[in-house]
Amino acid sequence: MKNLKSILLLLLPLHLAAQETQLVKYVSPIIGTGKMGHTFPGATVPFGAVQLSPDTDTIPYAVNGRYNGEVYRYCAGYQYDDPTIVGFSHTHFSGTGHSDLGDLLIMPTVGALQMNPGTAEHPKSGYRSRFSHDKERAEANYYKVFLEDPKVTAEMTTSTRVGFHRYTFPESENAHLIFDVKSGIYNYDEKNVWTVVRVLNDTLVTGFMQSNGWARTRTVYFAIRFSKPFKNYGARYGEKEQVYKGFWRKFDQTDNFADLAGRNVRMHFDFDTRDQEQLQLKVAISPVSMRNALENMEAEVPHWDFERVKQEGQALWEDELRKIQVDMLSHDDYVNFYTAMYHAALMPTVYMDVNGEYKGLDQEVHKADGFVNYTSFSLWDTFRAFHPYLNLVNPKRNADMVESMIAHYDQSVLHMLPIWSHYANDNWCMSGYHSVSVIADAIIKGVYKGDAVRALDACVQTANARKYEGIGYYIDLGFVPDEVSGTSVSNTLEYAYDDWCIAQLAKFLGKEEIYNTFIKRSGYWRNLFDARIGFMRPKNAQGVFRAKFDRLETHGQGFIEGNTWNYSLYVPHDPEGLMGIMGGQQRLATYLDSLFTMHLPDKFFANTEDITREGIIGNYVHGNEPAHHVVYLHNLAGIPSKGQERIRMILRNQYHTGYDGLGGNDDCGQMSAWYLFSSLGFYPVSPASDEYWIGSPLVKSATIRLENGNTFSVKVTNQGEKNVYVKEVKLNGRPLNGYKIKHADIVGGGTLTFTMSNKPKR
Amino acid sequence: MKNLKSILLLLLPLHLAAQETQLVKYVSPIIGTGKMGHTFPGATVPFGAVQLSPDTDTIPYAVNGRYNGEVYRYCAGYQYDDPTIVGFSHTHFSGTGHSDLGDLLIMPTVGALQMNPGTAEHPKSGYRSRFSHDKERAEANYYKVFLEDPKVTAEMTTSTRVGFHRYTFPESENAHLIFDVKSGIYNYDEKNVWTVVRVLNDTLVTGFMQSNGWARTRTVYFAIRFSKPFKNYGARYGEKEQVYKGFWRKFDQTDNFADLAGRNVRMHFDFDTRDQEQLQLKVAISPVSMRNALENMEAEVPHWDFERVKQEGQALWEDELRKIQVDMLSHDDYVNFYTAMYHAALMPTVYMDVNGEYKGLDQEVHKADGFVNYTSFSLWDTFRAFHPYLNLVNPKRNADMVESMIAHYDQSVLHMLPIWSHYANDNWCMSGYHSVSVIADAIIKGVYKGDAVRALDACVQTANARKYEGIGYYIDLGFVPDEVSGTSVSNTLEYAYDDWCIAQLAKFLGKEEIYNTFIKRSGYWRNLFDARIGFMRPKNAQGVFRAKFDRLETHGQGFIEGNTWNYSLYVPHDPEGLMGIMGGQQRLATYLDSLFTMHLPDKFFANTEDITREGIIGNYVHGNEPAHHVVYLHNLAGIPSKGQERIRMILRNQYHTGYDGLGGNDDCGQMSAWYLFSSLGFYPVSPASDEYWIGSPLVKSATIRLENGNTFSVKVTNQGEKNVYVKEVKLNGRPLNGYKIKHADIVGGGTLTFTMSNKPKR
Repeated sequence: MKNLKSILLLLLPLHLAAQETQLVKYVSPIIGTGKMGHTFPGATVPFGAVQLSPDTDTIPYAVNGRYNGEVYRYCAGYQYDDPTIVGFSHTHFSGTGHSDLGDLLIMPTVGALQMNPGTAEHPKSGYRSRFSHDKERAEANYYKVFLEDPKVTAEMTTSTRVGFHRYTFPESENAHLIFDVKSGIYNYDEKNVWTVVRVLNDTLVTGFMQSNGWARTRTVYFAIRFSKPFKNYGARYGEKEQVYKGFWRKFDQTDNFADLAGRNVRMHFDFDTRDQEQLQLKVAISPVSMRNALENMEAEVPHWDFERVKQEGQALWEDELRKIQVDMLSHDDYVNFYTAMYHAALMPTVYMDVNGEYKGLDQEVHKADGFVNYTSFSLWDTFRAFHPYLNLVNPKRNADMVESMIAHYDQSVLHMLPIWSHYANDNWCMSGYHSVSVIADAIIKGVYKGDAVRALDACVQTANARKYEGIGYYIDLGFVPDEVSGTSVSNTLEYAYDDWCIAQLAKFLGKEEIYNTFIKRSGYWRNLFDARIGFMRPKNAQGVFRAKFDRLETHGQGFIEGNTWNYSLYVPHDPEGLMGIMGGQQRLATYLDSLFTMHLPDKFFANTEDITREGIIGNYVHGNEPAHHVVYLHNLAGIPSKGQERIRMILRNQYHTGYDGLGGNDDCGQMSAWYLFSSLGFYPVSPASDEYWIGSPLVKSATIRLENGNTFSVKVTNQGEKNVYVKEVKLNGRPLNGYKIKHADIVGGGTLTFTMSNKPKR
Repeated sequence: MKNLKSILLLLLPLHLAAQETQLVKYVSPIIGTGKMGHTFPGATVPFGAVQLSPDTDTIPYAVNGRYNGEVYRYCAGYQYDDPTIVGFSHTHFSGTGHSDLGDLLIMPTVGALQMNPGTAEHPKSGYRSRFSHDKERAEANYYKVFLEDPKVTAEMTTSTRVGFHRYTFPESENAHLIFDVKSGIYNYDEKNVWTVVRVLNDTLVTGFMQSNGWARTRTVYFAIRFSKPFKNYGARYGEKEQVYKGFWRKFDQTDNFADLAGRNVRMHFDFDTRDQEQLQLKVAISPVSMRNALENMEAEVPHWDFERVKQEGQALWEDELRKIQVDMLSHDDYVNFYTAMYHAALMPTVYMDVNGEYKGLDQEVHKADGFVNYTSFSLWDTFRAFHPYLNLVNPKRNADMVESMIAHYDQSVLHMLPIWSHYANDNWCMSGYHSVSVIADAIIKGVYKGDAVRALDACVQTANARKYEGIGYYIDLGFVPDEVSGTSVSNTLEYAYDDWCIAQLAKFLGKEEIYNTFIKRSGYWRNLFDARIGFMRPKNAQGVFRAKFDRLETHGQGFIEGNTWNYSLYVPHDPEGLMGIMGGQQRLATYLDSLFTMHLPDKFFANTEDITREGIIGNYVHGNEPAHHVVYLHNLAGIPSKGQERIRMILRNQYHTGYDGLGGNDDCGQMSAWYLFSSLGFYPVSPASDEYWIGSPLVKSATIRLENGNTFSVKVTNQGEKNVYVKEVKLNGRPLNGYKIKHADIVGGGTLTFTMSNKPKR
């Protein structure tokens, strides 16, 4: 049969043959759209600037300054359990635990005009619509849903900077497209700072929206083209007070007025529709100007061929996915693997117009010279496995991301690399200055080929930003004191790791003085290890450990997104040193066993952020990042088989193909990158080293097609659901000495062979 | 004595000789800064982008949406009677009756830091200071005042785009410069839309402020250099609610934080000062970017030489004033004349960076190609005499202003020329579309040499903006109906005049069809003349004149800033036709006599906007514009001597050298231009004709130095305070036939000779 198939394939035209093995069909954007995954189901191309996706609610982040906890569910705009769709907006984070964006919402309606979204309980109170998953379809770069209230089928696809909508209407003399500029994710009354809309003619609208929010000063310029002229249009303004009435006397600014400006603008465009008539619209965005938005549209999608845009985008995805070809144990495994690859190619996003212009952190217009500028760096998450993953499968992109980070630094009046940056802003979210890990890793691995000395300088400057989050105290005292920061231990541990990255880069570049400074700082983690209890613990400036301290509690104990059980192992750059201070290999082994098997009382789950109940194994929290390297430490503890068993357990427990298939926020691809590395059988425990630690592969085989033309293969014999233990590992046919492989081993091309067993080796 | 002086002059070095005859010394910027003049006393260069001037109060335009009538006093930021100065801001309108601007306020303080302006009643409650006029000096491009509370002498001067401050401090370890970005003219809580400030180092700060207000979307970028490093700085934010607390956790954003963003930001910069130490700062502005603001500063004022900037600016003024050299009857007359020239060279202002970039009406960045881009066109005022005045003494600038208006049109999504435009916005204030008058006048007089056909098209499009202020009705019915607009008569009369301008331009360009259309429309004024009462009167769409109608009342009668007595004569393009419909020459003469001599009951003064009690002569309102041409109609009415007498009366009654020397708002130079023309003995009754009507000169002689190298002289024999009547007029030695001279008569060079008498000719 197999041979017959091969023969048939030879007879088929090439493109059909290609279709035969399409990987893109395995991508299920619905995975993670329920519960804590915080992924979005909508359409986008790899790293696209536009993520055109349905928002199932737009409840306010805060009203009158009070935080609304419910809003957390809507980090990506969509929750699978919701009964209604408010509309389709053009920008979304994937898998974050705080949010923003959801810009430029479009919604088709039929019948009496409603200019408010309404509520989920009473969908008819607004322009939102009920929908059901039976009539919903999410593919890479394609999303389709039937909106039950207007009886409109909504379809969408994208190019990098253009969202392409297709709406199939029933017959109506009262069909509308709502364009809600007030709408947004993590919205609140004051979020929309300003809006300008210009109706250039009956098929072309341009404008911009400026918002405050997670990004303080974010401006999105847009151009919208309609496939059919609207017969009428109008606007509502959200001004609390319109002081200068003079504007309004001269024109009726709500009715067919082409020159709109104000806060919280909502618009409607009205049409007559025949039964099953398709209205299409293209929405291009730009960080720089309306002119550029229009240029982006003309350059990327000058036509009205929806299918072509969809197929071109899916071809980009196919190219992306083909970088790793795997054999897996089951269809679900294929879905999990390629959806993980998909999720690991959504962010950071292109932040640059087709002409190379972008708005810099300094709020000036810049032109990217020889690189693609990216934004939305969730670095506390992504420095761990995501950027190392890019260094394997997307080194050119990662080099450009490093260049983007250095451009950010050049534009920073604080002289700092990005912490958590998006759209020409830094929101300084989470701890550490992990840009330096990404930069050092990319340079040491030969990925970033720009000015490494300049990059090192940026790292050093950032690490010396004394006013930022206790860095000055850290430099002076060797740790961040408890009274200075609520996350003093996380900060200290992460600074120490980051400083080690700087030291490695300095060493690589022969900068001895910098090396000496930072290698010293990289040992500061020791200052917060309380040997009496065997855990990291907050300490005040007088050097006294905090008396009242809870080892299971996540909040208020000096850590961020992790209790001390998870965080005390966060010395990825010196696990041997940590093991030593802990009391040796046996103590580490016991610690790991306890971590993965202990009973965590329910009250602590309630306080563990960003993850589901299932995101925790014992007291090991996979749904958050601080312990992502921990399971690989079993190698060091002399109990690799237990690690292998647990790696497989995490792969099986924390990732599945359901809408709730992610045990925690995907965190801009970090959770997915962990899955990808671990499925392949190795993991970058300490980025900026050139080493990967061996685990337990899930694939039956894998071929990584490297950008340099080489291929690196993983071959697994005796793979099976129960064969989770590694009996033997060979690199290029020779038994591996120890439990690490080098980056050079991979990029040089070769084969890593695992022989699996259902029995632990020891 | 005179001969001796001439001989002495020959012996002096040239520059001293020049000083001897300095005209700039006659300029008194204090004129008009009290009561209704609404001029500002601060420093600026001719048509400069920066007007650096003290603001004596910054009371809110409105609180909770309710208008505060008191704010009207502060259109230019300064009221002479006020006891305190709040600070020195960088942008001011001159002589407007509605307002905006007052951007980027700087104030020196000493002692405990106060970050609020405080109140005039309790100046010590804030950073403002008391001052007295004894220790105040205002010259062209120089302003000085002693601030009594901090005991600081403040001095300021400017270049086109840079404000240069010099503050002489007492000894203090607690000296501050307050930088208040929230402050502004016609301010209210929501006016400041957004502010960004970047403290690049301890002597350089950049940023931008974006406001809503009279201009809906106005952004001013800035760069500030300090002559001495500040030792410390900080900020206060006016956020009602700061939802995303995350920003704040990482840094103390109030203390020495370099990357500020928010609403209503106020900053302080702190210094130690020695006794009499001078701190200087330069503030450059740009409509485009911080980068451009800095470039403007480096290009215009790369040094710290205050005196040089002052002198260079005063030299520019001297050049400007020398365009008309006059002999006058008294020193005060010189002051009035040259201050009028000064006030007629403040607005519109340069709106373009040194590199030619500016922000267009479309909110995009444009580069001015071969012209200087100007903004702040108060066209309802300035089309009458101000722009015609520029066509004589500043034709190159006026041509650029026309180019700026056409660029505005090109950028207008409404396809309209400016109505009342400032800073890349139109506030659509007042009635008519008087750009067309300015454009037609400039083309017909040979001043504008650009694409006249394109300009005509812009005029036609604007005149056909059916949705604007009843234009559609006007086109369809021949008038704006009463029920459509509160100023239906003003609109109709002004549209008719504007249409005549378009017709003249069309004729000039040989566009017969356009001529026919618009010459017909130019007669629509007839549709609102109620022959039964002999006045213009509102009419409804059914063609019925309004029943209840008050001829003396200004408000609610269908007019703007004028009652029907003043407005009924507003047919400048067809006064003969108007006279005919009124019943002939005698009726017109009686009308004029009544207008200037009738008793206007007090209750009507209260309702007459923008002018003082003294701004009214009988029922003739000089303080507002609609009747500015009226006094010249005495020629047509066959009673020129009465006109001459009244022209002199207006010149004497409405203009004097006091702080309250203007009888009404100077209106961006229109009031001053009226003074200048009338002083010279002629006036452009109907711009876009090439004619000036003869009046009664105030000068003893005048020489206009034309840009084409020619000179035109006015010589007056027997001039005297009582010799207000014109006995004879000769043009180039030949008696003038009639009461008009042509533009060509002037620009061709020549001499207009008046012989005056103390007795009327008839």
